Amino acid sequence: MKVLVLISGGMDSTALLYDMHAQHDVMGALSFHYGSKHNERELPMAAHHCALLGVKHQVIPLDFIADHFTSDLLQSGGDVPEGHYEDANMVKTVVPFRNAIMLSIATGYAESIGAEAVAIAAHSGDHAVYPDCREGFMDALANTMEQGTYAKIQLLRPYVGIRKEGIAALGDKYEIDFSKTYSCYKGGALHCGKCGTCVERKEAFALAQLNDPTNYDV
Amino acid sequence: MKVLVLISGGMDSTALLYDMHAQHDVMGALSFHYGSKHNERELPMAAHHCALLGVKHQVIPLDFIADHFTSDLLQSGGDVPEGHYEDANMVKTVVPFRNAIMLSIATGYAESIGAEAVAIAAHSGDHAVYPDCREGFMDALANTMEQGTYAKIQLLRPYVGIRKEGIAALGDKYEIDFSKTYSCYKGGALHCGKCGTCVERKEAFALAQLNDPTNYDV
Repeated sequence: MKVLVLISGGMDSTALLYDMHAQHDVMGALSFHYGSKHNERELPMAAHHCALLGVKHQVIPLDFIADHFTSDLLQSGGDVPEGHYEDANMVKTVVPFRNAIMLSIATGYAESIGAEAVAIAAHSGDHAVYPDCREGFMDALANTMEQGTYAKIQLLRPYVGIRKEGIAALGDKYEIDFSKTYSCYKGGALHCGKCGTCVERKEAFALAQLNDPTNYDV
Repeated sequence: MKVLVLISGGMDSTALLYDMHAQHDVMGALSFHYGSKHNERELPMAAHHCALLGVKHQVIPLDFIADHFTSDLLQSGGDVPEGHYEDANMVKTVVPFRNAIMLSIATGYAESIGAEAVAIAAHSGDHAVYPDCREGFMDALANTMEQGTYAKIQLLRPYVGIRKEGIAALGDKYEIDFSKTYSCYKGGALHCGKCGTCVERKEAFALAQLNDPTNYDV
């Protein structure tokens, strides 16, 4: 199948790129620069893995999110909260309807280049606070994509039913260098080790009983 | 209800703006500059009506559509075909998944400003060639919007069941100056009178038995 992959440069979407590359014809990978605190750190990681696999990588700027949207994930927002991903205060890091925006753009792009599917790495650990990661949302959007395109473009979301430790294990399978991925919402030179995504990252390697190659600040 | 309105500057979305303004609390109106041949002509029309009604108007640039998408509606595409809107060659004017992209961005924007609904002027005459105007698509996207937002943002599409002559009649009801709207896909100083949207525009006024205030080239 001809697939377009969404890649942020974090470990989930990096694993997805290798996974799709092993199973399908990857026509390209899309990233978005939307003004988050960590875009500048994660996008070069996405570019690195695309280059390794020989996949065309395209970064699409979405300045309107930085200009008009409200979220502490953005440079325009407040401090990123610390704690577990599933804590209530993580809601402040939600960028409203972000996945729908990215997937809609990816779908139009996919139809333009002749791809048959768009793949996203949303997984079950994302669901607690993010309405646009849950399976109900993904089902509805998949239906929208099929209805709204000539090619009846499919939404592949192979990790919706698995947790992040399963993704860490995939990295092991494909021998992915996860030290060359970036997740931290704070966007510092080192992963902070305290924000929701850092806590979840540590937890994933521990639960998968794999070495965590990440340099944390704490 | 607090509503965000999508407005292009054509007669359908201009009628929608007046209609929503009469019935709801319109928190703002969004337009998109996506590199179509007629963007430069239609957007000032949208701005004009927003200013008349005292509605905040925001134009969001979507350069990635011009850069990467394929459509004869775009400046980067081929010549706009002439003939009836429902003809097969009008497919060349489809911008892939455009309405989903615009509505997804509008939904994230709406959640950021506290709106409860997003309104779009898609009508039954649009359905023949545009998969992302049909009610099946609109239903699916409405479900996606409710699932993917905290505010369960609604999609208002009051014209999905009516034809363009009904919209012409609404303009009469609200005393809208339709000479200050722009539809022509070719983007010339005058409406060409031959492209699908011009043919449909003429037909709508004729069927509604109303004066057509448009200056056509032919």
